[in-house]
Order: sequence, then C-alpha cells, then structure tokens
Amino acid sequence: MKTVIGVDLGGTNIVSAVVNERGQVLGKDKRPTQAFLGAPGVIRRIADSVKAASLDSGLPWKSHLRIGIGSPGPLNPKKGIILYTPNLNWKNVHLTAALTRLTGKKTVLENDANLAALGESWIGAGRGEKFALCVTLGTGVGGGFILDGKIYEGAWGVSNHIGHVVVDPKGPKAPYGNSGILEQYASATAIIRMATEAGLKPGPGEKMEAYTFQKMAEKGNPKALKVYEKAGTMLGVGLTSAIHLLNPGMIIFAGGVSAAGDLIFKPMHRELKERCFASHLKGLKFRVAKLGDNMGVVGAARLAWQSLG
Amino acid sequence: MKTVIGVDLGGTNIVSAVVNERGQVLGKDKRPTQAFLGAPGVIRRIADSVKAASLDSGLPWKSHLRIGIGSPGPLNPKKGIILYTPNLNWKNVHLTAALTRLTGKKTVLENDANLAALGESWIGAGRGEKFALCVTLGTGVGGGFILDGKIYEGAWGVSNHIGHVVVDPKGPKAPYGNSGILEQYASATAIIRMATEAGLKPGPGEKMEAYTFQKMAEKGNPKALKVYEKAGTMLGVGLTSAIHLLNPGMIIFAGGVSAAGDLIFKPMHRELKERCFASHLKGLKFRVAKLGDNMGVVGAARLAWQSLG
Repeated sequence: MKTVIGVDLGGTNIVSAVVNERGQVLGKDKRPTQAFLGAPGVIRRIADSVKAASLDSGLPWKSHLRIGIGSPGPLNPKKGIILYTPNLNWKNVHLTAALTRLTGKKTVLENDANLAALGESWIGAGRGEKFALCVTLGTGVGGGFILDGKIYEGAWGVSNHIGHVVVDPKGPKAPYGNSGILEQYASATAIIRMATEAGLKPGPGEKMEAYTFQKMAEKGNPKALKVYEKAGTMLGVGLTSAIHLLNPGMIIFAGGVSAAGDLIFKPMHRELKERCFASHLKGLKFRVAKLGDNMGVVGAARLAWQSLG
Repeated sequence: MKTVIGVDLGGTNIVSAVVNERGQVLGKDKRPTQAFLGAPGVIRRIADSVKAASLDSGLPWKSHLRIGIGSPGPLNPKKGIILYTPNLNWKNVHLTAALTRLTGKKTVLENDANLAALGESWIGAGRGEKFALCVTLGTGVGGGFILDGKIYEGAWGVSNHIGHVVVDPKGPKAPYGNSGILEQYASATAIIRMATEAGLKPGPGEKMEAYTFQKMAEKGNPKALKVYEKAGTMLGVGLTSAIHLLNPGMIIFAGGVSAAGDLIFKPMHRELKERCFASHLKGLKFRVAKLGDNMGVVGAARLAWQSLG
C-alpha cells in the first residue's frame, strides 16, 4: 500500500498521520511541540513524530511516498521556508530541507489555514465543491481558498488572509498596523477582549476563554449575547467583501468560535442578506468543518498526494 | 489572415473592432447604442456595427472566426445571457444566441470589467503579469481579476465585484441594500456626491462631472482636495481587503477617476502602507491602464481568441 504522511505543526502540539489515497488515517502520533527547543530541536521532534506515526500504522517505512506539513504563516510554500511564526518564534527556517535530511522523504510545506481548507474540501464538509472558502475562527481568523480542488496561492503564496479584511476602518488597532480587521471581532481573542470590555468575567472555576462567554450567551446573558452579535455582524461584513470578490460556492467554518453556532451565524446571515447581491448568495452553501482534529494532517497529506501529481 | 471581432456594448455607444492574434486593431466601428430601441433593436445595431468594422478592416467576412462581446453585468457568461443591465434596462436577454443568429458567427459574452482586465493583461499595462487585478474607477467601481492569463470567474461568474467590498459598514446606503462600499467613495458618482455635500458647485460653463472637481483640487481648492483624499483613503481600505485575499501581483487602474493621479493615489498608497502586511505589498506593482478606448474591444477579442483554444 502507498501512503503519505501529513504533519500539523502547531505552537502546542505536533500531530502526524499516515494517510492513504482515499484520505483514511492509518496511523497517528501526537506530541508536545516543546517550542523552547528552538527550530533544530523541534524539527527533530517532527521527524520522530513522523516515524512514530509510521510505526503506529504498521506499514513499512518505504510505503510512505512523501511528507506534507502545515505550519502557521507567513511562509514560502514553493521554497519550503517558514518566514516567521510568532508562536514558535522562528525566522527564515528552511523546514522542508531539514525534514528531508532527517527522514529521507521529499517534503512539501503549506500554511495551516490553507491545509484545513484543502482537507475539508477533499473528504470533509466541502467534498465535491470546486470553489470553497474555509474560514477558521480560532485564536486568530485564518482562511483558505480552494479552487478546482487546489489551494489558491495568489502571486506569491500570501493570499486568503481573510482575517485581515477591513470591516471597520475606524475599529481597534491591530498589532501589525492595520485596524478594524475581521480578526479583531470574530476570533476567540476578540471575543475575550470584547467580553472583558463589556465588564464580563469568568465565574469561579471558569477559564478566560471564548467558550466561557459562549456559555454565558447561551444562558441569555445580554452582554455576552451582544458580544456574539457584534462578532457575527462583523463576520457578515467581512464575508460580504470576500463573497463579492471571490464568488465562492461554499463557505466552511472551522475553529473554536464556530462552535457558537447560531449565536454568531444568525447575525452573520442577517448581515449577508442585507448586504450581498442576491446573485451572489443564491446557491452559496454554508457548512461547518467535519474533520475535527484530523483537518490539519489530512490537508497536509492531500498536499503531499497532489505534489505527486 | 484570421481575426476575431470584439464588441464593447455600453449604455451610450456600441464599439466593434476587428482584432488579430497579436491584439492589433485592423478595423473599427462606433455608433450610439440607442437604448430606447429595446433589446431586439440594439442587438440589430450590434450586428450592423460588427459588419461595419469588418468592412473597415477590408478583410473578407469569413476571416472573422468569432465574436467576443462585453456588457455591464450581472450576466451569465457560460450561457451568454445578460441577467440585468440597469443602463439598458434589459432582463434575461440571450445576447450570444441572438448575435449568432444575425451574424452566423459563434459569440462569447463576458462582463465588461473582466474584459478590460483581460485586454490590459494581454497587451496593455499588465502584459506578462499572471495575477492582475484591474480596478475600473468610472461611473461605478468595477473589477476584473486575471489568473494565469484568464479571467477568474468564481463559482458561477459573479466574482471580482471590488466596488462592493465594504470599506465602512456605517457608510452611506447603496441603492441595492449594501452600505459603505468602495463604489460609494471612489467612483465618479461618489466624487460628485461628496463634492456636492461639501458645498462645491461647477463654475460657469463647467459640467457636473468628477473631472470638474478634479480640476478644482488640482488648483488647490481645500474642499475638493478633501474629497479626493477621502476617495483615495477608502480606495486604500478596499484594496487592503482585496490584496490580503487575492495576493495580486499587479493592480491596474482604469476609468475616468484614475486620471486624477496622485490626488487619489497618494492617500491610497499611504493607507495601503499603513494597513497591509509588508509581505503583501513588497513586489506588488501598480499601473494605470494603457489601452484607452480600445480596452473593451481588445479584451472582448482576447476572450474570443481564448474560446478558440
């Protein structure tokens, strides 16, 4: 049997999976990233994780044709270089070359948000959809756009930054110059910020996380409801711009904040209905991601398969 | 010699041109649209214009392989149907079938803003650029996005509506539901509205048009300067969203308002510099359209050539 290995490199964990041509996961490994080790140490951990996933699959090492790996950006997918990752504090790390050296396998790299979109459009919520925009509402807001089954890269691989679409030019300042961008309203970080600004606090035993405020909103807390109303409204504003520019056939939501469901999606749909041309909304499908924890590794595996032609 | 005929159908004029494979115009016709005649009458005028352009070229009728035609949208390029054009008041007009009946030539249809982008990226300002976003600052704000030399269509051909990117969610209401969109700040219509709101009026013998206020700004009129400052700033906000989503390699400006030059582009660049990731701006080229009056017909001709494979 021929397989590839997909890797999801995150700030907290490294996940590796052996994946066949139909997207089935045949072996898996998950271990802490231990970012404090620095690039060389973490890359050795990735290679160890890849080997552990191979062992877990029970398949011979030579059955794995390639490695696909996803990382937060910005990065250069063609050269396999991570330009900068705030969560790992890496700069200009030639990740694919190092992994090939350690594993003997050709390795391909891509932005993790793009790989989430690729995985979901392959065997998840977007199966069969040719033009799928995937919006990840997590710590930040990321995006991936799938065109005819492949990642849309743009002129030099820095496209799909939907979190940086401006939704209110006078909105709060972002750490990197821009202001009033979608990420500042619809990310978990933004939910926490807006809830705190509204005077909300986690109760005893509750964590300072978006889910805490989601539960408050679900119980009818008017301040928490207003936070999600704002997040959803701004999501609708940002998607209006994306929809008129890209004309996607499907929008797939991933990430923790999307678990808020109608709390965020109801105001979003109201805003979209008010703002979008009927010709753009009619036929546009909305879905929630289906692959869960496997989204990243399955997307990375798909990339590896596609690189094989 | 083999040629095609490109047609630009506007609310005011029909322009037709015989164009060879290198983009050279070998014959041309221009005549008033006479929209009051209704669809059947106007379509007959298009067919007459096509024949007049052929005569002007001196080439035999059979040398023209196909017809490409551009029209304001929304339209269905695959089916060759104009869904709706406010300036002609057409609804669901099967334009390509009617023209084929009248001329005997297979005809292909596309949105005029897309064809402007296609023409410019073929032999105009975007020659050699694989990912060019064309922004037309005219009566409205239209857009076309060229991907690997071809029009990016999206899931069902209604993409590239950059004029409908939201730049201020609390901005003025647009006639079709949305509000605070780019078109309401950077179009000629918006310039006239903002100038009028600022208390500006055309002088004796001057027309109520954007160019009149451009001349005032060029002479240092502070109110007129402020209008262009606002237009340029909002253009920068809207393009920030487009640049982060699409990662174009080049942005080409067309349309009457782009003639204002630095009046609008200076605040735009300032805004882009403040808002965009350096990774997105570095290497991004800005150009002004070069084909002038021929932009539409040359783009339509290119579409016809591409449809021949």
